[in-house]
Amino acid sequence: MINGKNIIGFEYSNEGSETFKAVNPALVTEIDGEFYSATEPEVARAVEKAVIAFDTYASLSGEKKANFLDQIGAEILDLGDELVQRAVQESGLPETRIVGERGRTVGQLNNFANLLREGSWVEASIDTAIPDRSPIPKPDLRKMLIPIGPVVVFGASNFPLAFSTAGGDTASVLAGGNPVIVKAHNSHPGTSELVAEAIYKAAEKTGMPDGVFSHLQDKGYSVAQQLVTAEGVKAVAFTGSLRGGKALLELSARRKVPIPVFAEMGSINPVIILPGALENHGDLATQYAGSITLGSGQFCTNPGLLVSVASDSLENFKTQLGNEIEKIVPTTMLNEGIYAHYQSLKENTIEQAGVKVLSKSSHNPGNTSGTPLVATVSGNDFISNPSLHEEVFGPFSLLVECSDQDQLERVASLIEGQLTITLMGTENDLINNKAVIKKLIHKTGRILFNGVPTGVEVCSSMQHGGPFPASSDSRFTSVGTGAIKRFVRPMSYQNWPNDLLPLELQDKNPLGIWRLKDNNWNNSTE
Amino acid sequence: MINGKNIIGFEYSNEGSETFKAVNPALVTEIDGEFYSATEPEVARAVEKAVIAFDTYASLSGEKKANFLDQIGAEILDLGDELVQRAVQESGLPETRIVGERGRTVGQLNNFANLLREGSWVEASIDTAIPDRSPIPKPDLRKMLIPIGPVVVFGASNFPLAFSTAGGDTASVLAGGNPVIVKAHNSHPGTSELVAEAIYKAAEKTGMPDGVFSHLQDKGYSVAQQLVTAEGVKAVAFTGSLRGGKALLELSARRKVPIPVFAEMGSINPVIILPGALENHGDLATQYAGSITLGSGQFCTNPGLLVSVASDSLENFKTQLGNEIEKIVPTTMLNEGIYAHYQSLKENTIEQAGVKVLSKSSHNPGNTSGTPLVATVSGNDFISNPSLHEEVFGPFSLLVECSDQDQLERVASLIEGQLTITLMGTENDLINNKAVIKKLIHKTGRILFNGVPTGVEVCSSMQHGGPFPASSDSRFTSVGTGAIKRFVRPMSYQNWPNDLLPLELQDKNPLGIWRLKDNNWNNSTE
Repeated sequence: MINGKNIIGFEYSNEGSETFKAVNPALVTEIDGEFYSATEPEVARAVEKAVIAFDTYASLSGEKKANFLDQIGAEILDLGDELVQRAVQESGLPETRIVGERGRTVGQLNNFANLLREGSWVEASIDTAIPDRSPIPKPDLRKMLIPIGPVVVFGASNFPLAFSTAGGDTASVLAGGNPVIVKAHNSHPGTSELVAEAIYKAAEKTGMPDGVFSHLQDKGYSVAQQLVTAEGVKAVAFTGSLRGGKALLELSARRKVPIPVFAEMGSINPVIILPGALENHGDLATQYAGSITLGSGQFCTNPGLLVSVASDSLENFKTQLGNEIEKIVPTTMLNEGIYAHYQSLKENTIEQAGVKVLSKSSHNPGNTSGTPLVATVSGNDFISNPSLHEEVFGPFSLLVECSDQDQLERVASLIEGQLTITLMGTENDLINNKAVIKKLIHKTGRILFNGVPTGVEVCSSMQHGGPFPASSDSRFTSVGTGAIKRFVRPMSYQNWPNDLLPLELQDKNPLGIWRLKDNNWNNSTE
Repeated sequence: MINGKNIIGFEYSNEGSETFKAVNPALVTEIDGEFYSATEPEVARAVEKAVIAFDTYASLSGEKKANFLDQIGAEILDLGDELVQRAVQESGLPETRIVGERGRTVGQLNNFANLLREGSWVEASIDTAIPDRSPIPKPDLRKMLIPIGPVVVFGASNFPLAFSTAGGDTASVLAGGNPVIVKAHNSHPGTSELVAEAIYKAAEKTGMPDGVFSHLQDKGYSVAQQLVTAEGVKAVAFTGSLRGGKALLELSARRKVPIPVFAEMGSINPVIILPGALENHGDLATQYAGSITLGSGQFCTNPGLLVSVASDSLENFKTQLGNEIEKIVPTTMLNEGIYAHYQSLKENTIEQAGVKVLSKSSHNPGNTSGTPLVATVSGNDFISNPSLHEEVFGPFSLLVECSDQDQLERVASLIEGQLTITLMGTENDLINNKAVIKKLIHKTGRILFNGVPTGVEVCSSMQHGGPFPASSDSRFTSVGTGAIKRFVRPMSYQNWPNDLLPLELQDKNPLGIWRLKDNNWNNSTE
C-alpha cells in the first residue's frame, strides 16, 4: 500500500531522484520501500496549492471542518493493524503504546471537531453602536478569530501518531481554518504516509479543496528550509530538540515577512522532592523509576532532574531508586541517531566531577536499546557545572543532593524555562516552600503536586508549552484545544451590515455560541 | 517642575553627561530644560529593579493593581494645565486634541482597572479529577493567565499621552502584572517626564514595589538597544514606523532567549470606493478630506490609499476632494524629522510616472506645517510601480483610478497587511464585491463599511494590529482590553491543594469570576 510518493493536494508526486528507506531501530535493518525526497518545485507546488485552498477553506463552516476532522480519525482507525505494525517497526515503540497513541490521536481530532461544532472558540465579541454618544457616535464593532493562512507542521520523532502527520499540531491548524503542509519525520516515513493517505481520503470524501493538505518526505533538511522561508507560509509548528527548534527560529528570522514559529523543544522537567515525600520513599522510587523510563525516556515531559536536601531518608530513597531502575528492561529507542546521542550525553554526564552512578543495569540491551540510568551529584557540583543543566534525552535522571534548604533554593534559581515542574511532599512542605514555589511558577507551563509529569492530559486546562527553552512562545500551548489559538487572529468588523456578517457575529446569534455582547457573556439567540 | 532626570524605580538619576533639549516643532526653537540620556549602568539598574519587583508585583491582587492604575489616571489629571501646555509645546498638536487624548489615556487606565476588578480576563479553566477513570485516573487541572515578566515600552511620537508613558501599552503591561520600563520618546521628553512622575506618585501612594516602573530618556538609540537585548526583559511593545519596528525585531533576533516583540508599524489603510458611494460624492469628499488631514495625517489609521473605478461621478468626486483638501489649513507636524520625511516622500511620489496632483494649497504653512495633498494615478501605473505602495506619513492620500473592476481586483491583490481596510458604498456594492472582500479580510485587522478608519474606538471588540507590516504579530491587538494578552501566558496547576491555589482557581470561586469548569462557562460561587 505504501508507494513512497509525496502528496501535493490531491496529487501523488515523485519527481525527485533522491530516495531513502525507513530503518527498523530494533533490528537496525532497512524496511522495504523507498521514499522520494520532495524536490524544490514539488515543495513550491504544495505551498501554492495551500495558498489557493486557503481562500475556500478559511470560510467553511465549523460543521464542515468538523466533519473533515472526524473523517480523518475514522480513516486512521480504518487503516487497522497495518498502521500499528508499521509504526511499531519504524519507531521501536511497543504495540500497546502505538494503539494507545492512535486512540489519543483520534481523540484529539474529535475534540477539535467538537470545539468547532460548539463554535464559541472564535471568541466573538460585539460592541453595539451608540449613535447619539457625545462628542462622537460610537460605531458598531464586532470581533472574532479568523485563520491566518497555510501552516507548516513538522512530524515529531517521539510521537509518530499523536504529534506527527495527523497529530495535535495538524488538528489545530485545520480546525483553525488553515491548510496544512506536513513535513514527515524521516524516522517514520511509512507511518506518516499511511496517515497522510487517510487525510487525503477524508479530504476527498468531505469535499475539501485541493491543497488543504500536503505531505512531503525528505531525507535531509532542504524541504524544511524551503518551507520555513516560503512566502505563502504563515506559521510553523514544530516539536523536537532545542537544536532543531533553534535552527527553525534562525531560519525564519531570515524571512522578509516574519511569521510565528511555535517550537516545543522539551525540557528537563525538574522534580523537587520535599521531606514529606521521602516518608514513603519506596512508593516514590517505584513511581519515578516508571516515569523516568516510560517510552525509553523519550517524552518531552520526562523527569530528567530530581532535587532534594540530603537526609537519611534521601539515602534510603537513593538505594531504592537505584534498585527500581535496575529492574527496568531496556527498550528500543526511536532511531540510531537518538540512541547514539543518548549514549554520548549519558557518558559525558557521568564523567563530570562529583557525579556518581546510582544504578547498574545487568540487562543485555538490544542494538539500540537505551539502558536506564540514574546518577547523583552534590548541589555544589551541580551549581558550578552548567553542562549538568542540559537535557539528556532518554531514560536518564540526575538527582541533585543539596546540603540544605538554601542550596536547594539556589539550585531552583538556576532552572531555565520548563514544560513542567513537580513538587513532591505534603501540603505543609508546600507551605514551607512558598517563596521558592512563587519563583518556580514563573519558570514553567505546568506545575504538579505529587504526581509524575509524563502524563499529558488532553483537556481545556492543560498547558503544554513553557518559558524558553521549553517552547519558543510561552503564551501558547501545543496540547489541548487551546492549541488552535496559535493559528488564528482577531479581526474586527466596523458598521458592517448584519446580513453580510459571518454567522458568529450576526445579531440573532444563529449558531447559539457564547459571545461577549456589550461586555457581558451570553449565548442567547434572542 | 521638570528636572530632566531618569526615574529608576523610586529613584531620580542623572549619572550621564549627555543631555538634550525638547524642541517646539511649531516655532522650531528649543524649550528650556535639559534631559539626561540614561547611561548603561542606569539602564541595567532599571532592568534589575524590574526583575526584583516582578516577584512581588506579579502576585498582587487584581484590586491592588486596579487601584494603582486608577491612581495613575488621577495623578495625570492632577497635573492639570501644566501637562496639557507642555504636550502642546512639544508635539505641535492643538490643545483640544491633547485634552481629548488625556481623556482617552485616563479612560484606558480605568478600563484596565475595571477589567482587573471584574477578574474574568484570566481565562480560568478547571477540569476536575476523575480518579476512577480507566485505564488511568484523570488528574485535576486548573489553568489561568499569569504575567510574563518585565516589559519595555517605547513612547510613540504621534500619541504623546495615549500611546506613550502611561498609554495603552503601559496600562496593559501593568494590568497583566508586569513591571514596565518606559523609554521616553525624545520628541516629547518633558510630557513624558510629567506623566512618569504621576506614575511614580501613584506607585508610592498605592504601595507598589520599587522598580514596578522606570522611565528612561535618550537622545539616540543606545538605551533602546540595551533594553531590547537585556536578559531580564521578557517582552517589548512599540508603536512607530516600519523602519523602527524592523530595527527592534532585528535587534531582538540577536537575543539568546527570544521574547515577543509587539511592533505596531502603521499602514496605508486602503479605502475602496464602490459606485454607490459616489452618488453622494460631496459628502464623501468632505468626510475624507477631514480623515486624511486629521492630526496632520499622523494617525496609524490615516487613509493613505483610495481605490476606485473610473467614472463620471469619480471625476466629480476628484474635483470635490481636491477642493476640500485645499480648504484645510496646514498644521504643525510632530517634529522636524517627521516633517522633512513627509516633504521628501511627498515630492518623490508626485514625481512618479502618471501621478497627478489634485489639490493646490494656497495657505502659507508655518515652519514645520505639513501641507495636505492628494494625488491620482491610474491603476496601471500603480500596479507597475511598487514605490507608490509605500506609506507617506502625513496628510497625504493617493487615489488609484482603475480602468475596470478587474483592475480594481488586481490593485486589491497587491495590498499588504493593514490595520484597516474600508469599503465605501451600498450593501449591494458589498454583495457585488464578495470575492474581493473575502480576500481583503485576510489582509487587515479591522474592516469598515461606510466610515473613516481614523477613529479607533477603545472597546472589547476593537482590533488594532494586522498582518505584517501593519504589526509584527497579527494575533494580538494594542488597543482595547485585549491588549493585555500580549503580556500574559497560561499556566496549569495539576493536583494542587485547593487552599494553596490562586483565588481565581479555588473551588468556591471566591472572586465570582467567569470560569470554564469541566467545559462549561459559569460564574457561580456555589
